[in-house]
Amino acid sequence: MILSQITELVAICAKKGIENVILSPGSRCAPLTLAFARHPEIHARTISDERSAAFVALGMAQQLEEPVVLVCTSGSAALNYFPAVAEAFFQQIPLLILTADRPAEWIDQYDGQTIFQPEVYGKHVKGSFQLPDTVRNADQLWHSSRIVNEAVNLSKQLPSGPVHINIPLREPFYPDKDEKLVFPEKPRVFNLVKNKIQLTDESLIKLKNRLEIVQRVLIIPGQQRPDSQLQNLLDELAKNKKAVIVTDTISNLQSDHTISFHDHWLGNEVISEGLKPDLIISFGKSVISKSLKLFLRKTQASHWHIQEDGNAKDTFQRLTRNIASSPAYFMNWLSQNLGAQNTEFYQAWHWLEKSTGHKLLQTLEKQAFGEYPALAYCLSKTPTLSKIHVANSMAVRYLNLMGKRSQEIICNRGTSGIDGSNSTAVGCTFTTKEIVTLITGDMAFFYDRNAFWHNYAMPNLRIILLNNHAGGIFRLIDGPKNQPELEEYFETKQKLTGQHLATEFGFFYSKVVNGEELEDSLADFYEESLHPKILEIETSSLENAEILKAVKEKIKLSLEN
Amino acid sequence: MILSQITELVAICAKKGIENVILSPGSRCAPLTLAFARHPEIHARTISDERSAAFVALGMAQQLEEPVVLVCTSGSAALNYFPAVAEAFFQQIPLLILTADRPAEWIDQYDGQTIFQPEVYGKHVKGSFQLPDTVRNADQLWHSSRIVNEAVNLSKQLPSGPVHINIPLREPFYPDKDEKLVFPEKPRVFNLVKNKIQLTDESLIKLKNRLEIVQRVLIIPGQQRPDSQLQNLLDELAKNKKAVIVTDTISNLQSDHTISFHDHWLGNEVISEGLKPDLIISFGKSVISKSLKLFLRKTQASHWHIQEDGNAKDTFQRLTRNIASSPAYFMNWLSQNLGAQNTEFYQAWHWLEKSTGHKLLQTLEKQAFGEYPALAYCLSKTPTLSKIHVANSMAVRYLNLMGKRSQEIICNRGTSGIDGSNSTAVGCTFTTKEIVTLITGDMAFFYDRNAFWHNYAMPNLRIILLNNHAGGIFRLIDGPKNQPELEEYFETKQKLTGQHLATEFGFFYSKVVNGEELEDSLADFYEESLHPKILEIETSSLENAEILKAVKEKIKLSLEN
Repeated sequence: MILSQITELVAICAKKGIENVILSPGSRCAPLTLAFARHPEIHARTISDERSAAFVALGMAQQLEEPVVLVCTSGSAALNYFPAVAEAFFQQIPLLILTADRPAEWIDQYDGQTIFQPEVYGKHVKGSFQLPDTVRNADQLWHSSRIVNEAVNLSKQLPSGPVHINIPLREPFYPDKDEKLVFPEKPRVFNLVKNKIQLTDESLIKLKNRLEIVQRVLIIPGQQRPDSQLQNLLDELAKNKKAVIVTDTISNLQSDHTISFHDHWLGNEVISEGLKPDLIISFGKSVISKSLKLFLRKTQASHWHIQEDGNAKDTFQRLTRNIASSPAYFMNWLSQNLGAQNTEFYQAWHWLEKSTGHKLLQTLEKQAFGEYPALAYCLSKTPTLSKIHVANSMAVRYLNLMGKRSQEIICNRGTSGIDGSNSTAVGCTFTTKEIVTLITGDMAFFYDRNAFWHNYAMPNLRIILLNNHAGGIFRLIDGPKNQPELEEYFETKQKLTGQHLATEFGFFYSKVVNGEELEDSLADFYEESLHPKILEIETSSLENAEILKAVKEKIKLSLEN
Repeated sequence: MILSQITELVAICAKKGIENVILSPGSRCAPLTLAFARHPEIHARTISDERSAAFVALGMAQQLEEPVVLVCTSGSAALNYFPAVAEAFFQQIPLLILTADRPAEWIDQYDGQTIFQPEVYGKHVKGSFQLPDTVRNADQLWHSSRIVNEAVNLSKQLPSGPVHINIPLREPFYPDKDEKLVFPEKPRVFNLVKNKIQLTDESLIKLKNRLEIVQRVLIIPGQQRPDSQLQNLLDELAKNKKAVIVTDTISNLQSDHTISFHDHWLGNEVISEGLKPDLIISFGKSVISKSLKLFLRKTQASHWHIQEDGNAKDTFQRLTRNIASSPAYFMNWLSQNLGAQNTEFYQAWHWLEKSTGHKLLQTLEKQAFGEYPALAYCLSKTPTLSKIHVANSMAVRYLNLMGKRSQEIICNRGTSGIDGSNSTAVGCTFTTKEIVTLITGDMAFFYDRNAFWHNYAMPNLRIILLNNHAGGIFRLIDGPKNQPELEEYFETKQKLTGQHLATEFGFFYSKVVNGEELEDSLADFYEESLHPKILEIETSSLENAEILKAVKEKIKLSLEN
């Protein structure tokens, strides 16, 4: 007999619009597995490695903007979810994590798979709940259903994020052989009603007064999904010279009117002198560009952060106001209440942007074969309407140097780990028919290779594997490159290529070591396919470091003259 | 300049006898990496996937019975350690976990790799410490050194286990190019002085009085490492018919005088009737046999648990006394104070043991090819003086059915996860020149394949891969085998074989699908080699289930007659 609280739980999830669940196999979680698998409105998939499973769910929820459910068995399974749970927390992605558990009396009694599951994710979830382990009367069922409603609502409430329900279960776990699983037709549901936050008239007047004395407004959108309304509002502000908009690649708000090459010059104090804002306005999540952050920390600017829930991080050490408003509402208000800004300030930024764009293309073309120019070439062939998942850290840093992209850019910048890029990209492919290009270094790629260990098709997945057989990033930063331990302990030389992995999982595979091969391979890389394709670009981390340095130097010279 | 608290930390570890550290690459942890790598008395290895790194450290510490150090960078790296940390906690294995972190002011400010690291392992470590992020004066250095001493001592103190030090670090992380790293010659060290626990005379008299009224003493050693002193004491007790000793395979105390085939018959109530003890004496950690646990829970016996720290789990629901004593001391006392037990009780157990042993061999020989008889054959060829790591769950259950082993049996029964068996076995190979045989199912094997993603030789590693292309265990338990979801959601059909993995990592590989091939492959499997060898035994989970059932039935029939 399947437990009534479990059929109720699944029915509530379905009523609340949850459509996707990622299961990992186990015995303790069997009632959950069966109920999710049998519910007609829910699509269940199985992924065996829980670390990957959780990142796959995150990759889906990131695109769907709806909670995806995770189900695992008792014991260390829940711990393998943790890297993705933390990423979801900091990237504000809704997940509903259901961990099956033994009843309390059997925890830590040397009797099978148990750990201390309640509250195991600590501060990295928005809430932790414990379902009652026995549901024999109406009050207990009410308790259980209430928790499920609260948990789903909490995961969706802004800022959205992961929520954990630990579910102790008693045997029997399995229905009888021909037992039909009956879901309640009217499970108890209470939904969060949509609201909006408005600034008071008094606040708006104060902000307007403040705007009258600023002349150099810099708008910094942090990581977020594409948003055409916001994009138009920002473009309008920029076109009317009311603000300079600095857009990292993960802002997904890059346009012809925004600044995207800033990472090339903001570290240069001579060039950056005329760029200092007196007001920074930010919204969204993190920014990639370290030089942007360091540059802003050295200014005397005020910093307003716009976020619907009124929270803010003080990333630039200049925070002066938390503004609880939707970014779109605020930008609209801003365009009506802000005059044109200092012309030199505006022109300085845009001159640099334009000059860098020209120079970068020319310079890259002249470089020897290496991951920087190769990646630029790949990007020129990537379909306009598609999605790009970039892994940490070198891949996303390269992308941030290469200017405006039309594709949606996805990256795990919540914790900036290398641990789940493949899986997150796999999750993304489950939500779209568009091409999903994963751009990754070899360390991130092999770290998360279990992302592909399942039976689901990913015909739209394309992988550009930048293989320098090491964590090449360590050769690019000043400290480690001078240490005798560089190769063994920092770069961590590794000899794998994508070939065996491709054969193993039935992916198409080609490896290129020079420009002609790259051109050949890219010619049909984006054509339709039944299976994923890997394009491996093999380079030397030593030469990559030289190219990066040479390009930087060339651009610096051209801008200083 | 390398920070003084870090050179001090490493010098203290060395003085306290720590010899091994597993590093994972990162920038924030660079001062730790450099200091450990450069210390002349410490052997540092690098493993990139932190989940594997931590299980490798656990595999080493389990054998060395000394703390092994783990070093990782900030962010989700620490979370990837967690499955092994929990395993170490429940298996009472000493680990010193050093997680580099950003200074407190930069946590959760959208500035790079941060999560909430302090106390992140919750109840799964013996202690959590936070090193001061600035050490500028003697008091701060004393604080830092004191923490390191406390943490190492705590990890070794019984019951030993993992201890976490979170280490916030400020830049610069790297010494200048030619800067020599100087370790303090006399770092501040305080060590835990060895002690022993003795029962009072009064307690011993009471226990002795209690012994006089028991007639059926059953001794159950839980999981532990081999111990010849204990082995002799137990054998003596058994030979003198003073107790029946029931030894699971992970007890490492099996002998000709102990019971090892109990898993075959204890589920059978008819047979088990005459086997009920009136006193259970246990020591060590968990037992494998579910039927043993269920059998004991149905008795009216008293249960004494012997453990030096005085703690006990109530695994059999019969616990009556916690006895804080070393098991060896107690067994010695027991043999002097216990008379011969009820003869029928003793004979009933030993008759079953002997009968099963004979019947099992005969029955297995007659079976079609499948993992059960194939594994029995493999074990007959495994070197007597060697170590066997068995993965969860089917591999270790098979082993527990097959009776006495001379090899040390290792298994992650702390949390009983499948997540780190390969890595734990790899860690074991780093500590011994003896052959280490890893016996694993396909799910555990592919789950943890990053165990092999490093540059260290493992010439003594042999892998017996029981590949039924699924979690075959789910076909062997009653509930799931009748569900239509069996294949997709429980067994999780997976098509991989070990071949590509072997090619990729340069392992020798052979696959067998019948008895003749198995015989051929085993002929030189244990010969010396420069590289690990994989022997893949491919079977069908359907047939495996039938064999298991048939053998069980045959043995049942032979014992009931």
